[in-house]
Amino acid sequence: MIFASDNWAGASDRVVAAIAEASRGSTPAYGGDDLTAELERRFSELFERDVGVLTVGTGTAANALGIAAFCRPGGVVFAHTQAHILVDEANAVAFVGSGAKVVGVDGEGGKLTPATLEAAVALYPPEAIRHGQPVAVSVSQISELGLAYSPEEVGALASVAASGGLAVHMDGARFAGAVAQPGVSPAGLTWKSGVDVLSFGGTKNGCVAAEALIFFDPARAEDSAFARLRIGHGFSKQWFVAAQLLAYLEDDHWLDLAGDANAMAERLADALRGSDEARLALEPAANEVLAVMSVSLDERLKAAGAIYYPWSTDGMPVAALPGEGEVLVRLVTSFRTSEAEVEQFASLLSTG
Amino acid sequence: MIFASDNWAGASDRVVAAIAEASRGSTPAYGGDDLTAELERRFSELFERDVGVLTVGTGTAANALGIAAFCRPGGVVFAHTQAHILVDEANAVAFVGSGAKVVGVDGEGGKLTPATLEAAVALYPPEAIRHGQPVAVSVSQISELGLAYSPEEVGALASVAASGGLAVHMDGARFAGAVAQPGVSPAGLTWKSGVDVLSFGGTKNGCVAAEALIFFDPARAEDSAFARLRIGHGFSKQWFVAAQLLAYLEDDHWLDLAGDANAMAERLADALRGSDEARLALEPAANEVLAVMSVSLDERLKAAGAIYYPWSTDGMPVAALPGEGEVLVRLVTSFRTSEAEVEQFASLLSTG
Amino acid sequence: MIFASDNWAGASDRVVAAIAEASRGSTPAYGGDDLTAELERRFSELFERDVGVLTVGTGTAANALGIAAFCRPGGVVFAHTQAHILVDEANAVAFVGSGAKVVGVDGEGGKLTPATLEAAVALYPPEAIRHGQPVAVSVSQISELGLAYSPEEVGALASVAASGGLAVHMDGARFAGAVAQPGVSPAGLTWKSGVDVLSFGGTKNGCVAAEALIFFDPARAEDSAFARLRIGHGFSKQWFVAAQLLAYLEDDHWLDLAGDANAMAERLADALRGSDEARLALEPAANEVLAVMSVSLDERLKAAGAIYYPWSTDGMPVAALPGEGEVLVRLVTSFRTSEAEVEQFASLLSTG
Amino acid sequence: MIFASDNWAGASDRVVAAIAEASRGSTPAYGGDDLTAELERRFSELFERDVGVLTVGTGTAANALGIAAFCRPGGVVFAHTQAHILVDEANAVAFVGSGAKVVGVDGEGGKLTPATLEAAVALYPPEAIRHGQPVAVSVSQISELGLAYSPEEVGALASVAASGGLAVHMDGARFAGAVAQPGVSPAGLTWKSGVDVLSFGGTKNGCVAAEALIFFDPARAEDSAFARLRIGHGFSKQWFVAAQLLAYLEDDHWLDLAGDANAMAERLADALRGSDEARLALEPAANEVLAVMSVSLDERLKAAGAIYYPWSTDGMPVAALPGEGEVLVRLVTSFRTSEAEVEQFASLLSTG
Repeated sequence: MIFASDNWAGASDRVVAAIAEASRGSTPAYGGDDLTAELERRFSELFERDVGVLTVGTGTAANALGIAAFCRPGGVVFAHTQAHILVDEANAVAFVGSGAKVVGVDGEGGKLTPATLEAAVALYPPEAIRHGQPVAVSVSQISELGLAYSPEEVGALASVAASGGLAVHMDGARFAGAVAQPGVSPAGLTWKSGVDVLSFGGTKNGCVAAEALIFFDPARAEDSAFARLRIGHGFSKQWFVAAQLLAYLEDDHWLDLAGDANAMAERLADALRGSDEARLALEPAANEVLAVMSVSLDERLKAAGAIYYPWSTDGMPVAALPGEGEVLVRLVTSFRTSEAEVEQFASLLSTG
Repeated sequence: MIFASDNWAGASDRVVAAIAEASRGSTPAYGGDDLTAELERRFSELFERDVGVLTVGTGTAANALGIAAFCRPGGVVFAHTQAHILVDEANAVAFVGSGAKVVGVDGEGGKLTPATLEAAVALYPPEAIRHGQPVAVSVSQISELGLAYSPEEVGALASVAASGGLAVHMDGARFAGAVAQPGVSPAGLTWKSGVDVLSFGGTKNGCVAAEALIFFDPARAEDSAFARLRIGHGFSKQWFVAAQLLAYLEDDHWLDLAGDANAMAERLADALRGSDEARLALEPAANEVLAVMSVSLDERLKAAGAIYYPWSTDGMPVAALPGEGEVLVRLVTSFRTSEAEVEQFASLLSTG
Repeated sequence: MIFASDNWAGASDRVVAAIAEASRGSTPAYGGDDLTAELERRFSELFERDVGVLTVGTGTAANALGIAAFCRPGGVVFAHTQAHILVDEANAVAFVGSGAKVVGVDGEGGKLTPATLEAAVALYPPEAIRHGQPVAVSVSQISELGLAYSPEEVGALASVAASGGLAVHMDGARFAGAVAQPGVSPAGLTWKSGVDVLSFGGTKNGCVAAEALIFFDPARAEDSAFARLRIGHGFSKQWFVAAQLLAYLEDDHWLDLAGDANAMAERLADALRGSDEARLALEPAANEVLAVMSVSLDERLKAAGAIYYPWSTDGMPVAALPGEGEVLVRLVTSFRTSEAEVEQFASLLSTG
Repeated sequence: MIFASDNWAGASDRVVAAIAEASRGSTPAYGGDDLTAELERRFSELFERDVGVLTVGTGTAANALGIAAFCRPGGVVFAHTQAHILVDEANAVAFVGSGAKVVGVDGEGGKLTPATLEAAVALYPPEAIRHGQPVAVSVSQISELGLAYSPEEVGALASVAASGGLAVHMDGARFAGAVAQPGVSPAGLTWKSGVDVLSFGGTKNGCVAAEALIFFDPARAEDSAFARLRIGHGFSKQWFVAAQLLAYLEDDHWLDLAGDANAMAERLADALRGSDEARLALEPAANEVLAVMSVSLDERLKAAGAIYYPWSTDGMPVAALPGEGEVLVRLVTSFRTSEAEVEQFASLLSTG
């Protein structure tokens, strides 16, 4: 019963097969290969426009390079107080962004709102240059608390961003989970709603190590190609990253994987809805389930072998806060999560 | 006939099999897995002492982090004028080292000598603080021109380094090629000869993307673990890197692969020795062969499909410089180079 | 009636006379002069121990260099949410500290408490390396809201810092104002209470541009000498900075200047205490007076030519928050503030 | 007999008087004052166009900020092998330029030529992105070996720069010395010849600490205002820097001071021309005199109290190289150099 994180899952067979296939023969290094070129075409098709693509090995690299592409001296970046870039990437934006500062912004469920963003930006008026200069906003799709932004919500934030001269970065470590929902498209969730650059994640959803930075203005990718080299993400055998992502995209494999993970999360949610000792803290949009449970249930689950983590209440609606003798936890499913794991977990909930 | 670079080669079957094996099941992320722990033990065994190990995805990341671990403000790093860190890594040492400067030092065949190093360091006397402060020397094993340092040669450089307060970094992108030679050991080539930190390369010699930074004082690895995160080399599914390197080391697979590449290089060298239109520029120690050939032969080889690059004459002995109508080229073999490729190349040489 | 900031004041006659004196003749450049050496002796005497001294031109340079001296990769620095380094120095700590992050910590009156510091540090447990690593705490003496830390309070914070492995930096832009109070000594407020490095301010209190970074472990100053050069604070005619600070320290001139400013602040405070339309928000310890006043009084004061700024309520005690129709403002006196200015201001208060 | 450097000289009386004048009264901080605004107007007049002006405290700050304004990731900057930015500023360009690399280029007398610049840039072809990307060339006016670039020479270099996409920075630490020559104008030496940004020096020629970064495209100054803050060169009492520079420029005071220094250098040169034991190494254009002298004369001069330094032969014409028993030295005059000093020095030459 592993619900610790989706990056505990191995890799999908199709992705591994693509690596094996790519391992044969010889190919030009440093991105001069055919697969890398093919991937750029494939992404342009997927996003319904010409995009600039830079593959990297980790989400941190994608996020830091994507944001740094829009940094300027004294740069201030706005993100949710629970954003991965603020909490979990060892100041990578500050380092790769040459001294940028990430400012935490409130928002229920890990989602910024136009109002909270606007209020945060207002603390940096143009005349107060000693405060630094706002350069970008970063939104996580899906959020660190499991919610999705609709295209309209992204657009509303992008509107605020535009009026403050901010670029819009989307941390799409779990982008597939958002796209797997009905009625949204990759283009609709991104550039059509005002996103400038996307960290397109593959690793959490079935790749070994494959992320892509998608610039919706391809010219922006040029300087970032140098920035990528100088942090060591210009892989010599770059075609292996492209091979993973091509297999990941082929036949909507990525959406199938995300759909599986989302379905397992929905079953967890169902089980929580029916539990006496636990409750959903937020309605999950994809594969992250925030739940409040009694300490005794928590102990019982762990004793039975369930692996998951307690979670920060930052950004939680008041109604969802754990009370006395309760704990807030995060459960994450993945393409690898089995029905058996979920059933076992559910049975422990109902026997409470 | 691909002799462009060893990083054009795919990956060895054993390494790919290890990735496939590692793709099954679920494992703690960010280095909390068993394979990562096992790899540290394995490296400690290989190097005959406790070492601190940080796996990363590229040689650039390993080099930049390894050197940065010893940088201080205004830091000056000494390396050969043809060193990869100076020429081919887009200033990664300067960036990751927060403003370090890499100074080019002469040396025949791409190898520093105690005399050239000493002369270079002497330009930075302690009292001239505006020049910056010497912090490290980096040597490439094997060198960018295909030569190996003996343990004694490394020791002599380390002696000069020690008297100037410099750390010794070894860029071992092709470390296997040096160890594959008779009479040397990993420990003997490194810490026993005064090396502080080694970039242990796997990618050029059969891995997909796997390098390890080996600190011979494990305490040095601690801060670098943070430095690794902030350039995005803290892979979430880190066990895939460990899996590659474990397979690479098992049963001396790495030395077998390097031995194959070296043997092919020796056959190329033989063919060059017997050619009327070409000659060896340097006696190769491993898998890089520097050769001088007539322009007409060069054209004939390329017309026949041989792929390789012209090379800088920087660091070449005078006797080896190309004359009128000649060109200096670098030929690199790999574990993937076939006898057929070499034979075809050789036959073109002799029909000249 | 200028109460905008103490850095609007010109410079004291004694400091200017010292510059004039230093302008004659010729002197070794880059700190090889006698005045710089004399200043280090003078500071060692003042602080009752050998100290390492680096003069710089601005408080931002002093703060950033002082903190950066203790930064490590992924470094996290704790400071009050209103701290100058967090709000008003355009990310200098992040830039000069090569990617450090400054985290805002609460505390009434702009002062950290052991409890708020401890809680903030606790969010960065050693095992959570992706959060970054805590490296330093910075306290402002006097605080941005005009309060002073007692030696005991500094000591209590230093205790928390020590248990978390943090260095203690003191931003002493207004250090003189704190020392000018009865019963405290420079040594007592700093290293005797656990401070590692002090930004000793001269500019706000009568110098033209003169700040000193005081390392209580002189060895720490060595690398910072290089760090100082690379941000352009290694003044060629460094003796001019030393000359200012020597004149500033001579005959307790610095304490006289600060005493004058403090006295004027106390008279402002008195006037506020007696006003119907305004009240003290905090009891001032030195030359910054936080006051709440009615909007109509605010308008009347400005119409009469008073210059001062509204201020953030961040860190204000609840009882001191402005109500409906009120505004929180900051009034700063300086060595240059005249009794006439204060009297005029006071008379406007009482005519309300 | 001080010929060590022009930054050993104190400050001119007019500059000191301006500081004293500026010390009275109170003025808006951080550049909101009238003198700063007046200075921008004055510089626009001097350079015959609207310019963007950022005052800073040191030449290193000016150079690093000016070049950094044009840096991009992996940036490569070209400068003479003896350039101050390469040799004497502790990697400030690398640090402030976030990982830029300064590449040394040859050129007689410390001056780049179109041919040496072109050859250096050619090593960084656009397709070789791992080498980094050329971003700027920096020329010293006057050069570190005492020669001046004519407007035509600057223009020829700017032409090469333009075809490689490089910005042109001029290190004008001794700009006054170049302008003091007949037939040149500030505009002619800079933007009319293709210079993008100038470090306009005041300190070496009579100021206490006053340099100005002049952007010939004022829009370029905007981001640099933030970059200036984050290295601590946003002086709170910025009007003191403006006051120095206004006094420096008034009534051509700066040209008078430079003229005095140049005249003293010419007398030194004359004395050297007539000496048996010494000779001019280069014909000086301003206040730096490179001379070759016998070791015995060198010893005699030093015994008599002359202060000056031996100098690197890098960039010296072959004919000017010191022979056996000879030494190359640099003699620098300043506005403060007296006729008596020069006469005494000259008399020691002729008694050889």
